[in-house]
Amino acid sequence: MLNHQTALDRAFQALSDPTRRAIVERLTKGPASVSDLAEPFDMSLPAVHQHLQVLNEAGLMSWDKKGRVRWCRLNAKGLSAAEDWIAQRRALWEKRLDALDRHLKSSG
Amino acid sequence: MLNHQTALDRAFQALSDPTRRAIVERLTKGPASVSDLAEPFDMSLPAVHQHLQVLNEAGLMSWDKKGRVRWCRLNAKGLSAAEDWIAQRRALWEKRLDALDRHLKSSG
Repeated sequence: MLNHQTALDRAFQALSDPTRRAIVERLTKGPASVSDLAEPFDMSLPAVHQHLQVLNEAGLMSWDKKGRVRWCRLNAKGLSAAEDWIAQRRALWEKRLDALDRHLKSSG
Repeated sequence: MLNHQTALDRAFQALSDPTRRAIVERLTKGPASVSDLAEPFDMSLPAVHQHLQVLNEAGLMSWDKKGRVRWCRLNAKGLSAAEDWIAQRRALWEKRLDALDRHLKSSG
């Protein structure tokens, strides 16, 4: 199991690439095989495979093999961890701005 | 103005580094000078400056100079853009899982 910092490093790193975000986007419609996922991209299968590996290692996607086909599916937990990290910081900052605003109004 | 894809690339890239996330964390407590921000890190001022530049170019932080001091503050809008991207995909995927669950129950 990765520690939380490393997991976040990998999740944000994985999401920083537009091809990998497009793969995540496609996977919101449901599980897909590696060749389904490769189809819209002008990219070799090994290159797509490498992106999938990054998403898998980042905990954003899991895959299992059924017969000869490898099926990929999103991992909501991995997405939540990255989302929550940002949401909590943004909320703290906005709370601070609101407090400052109230302070300025009451002392104005 | 960066296009939306590039802005997201940069925002997620910026957040993939633990030092930069620690800087964001610190900035939730309020604006800070570059030397305030550098203080907890065992790192040269130029190295910290470089991290701040990445955060600034990613739209997660802005800075302005007052006299000799450069003040940094979080940019809630930049944080929201990254958070919203993840939240929307996670919501789509969870909605799909719920629909599948209902389908399995009704046909079970």
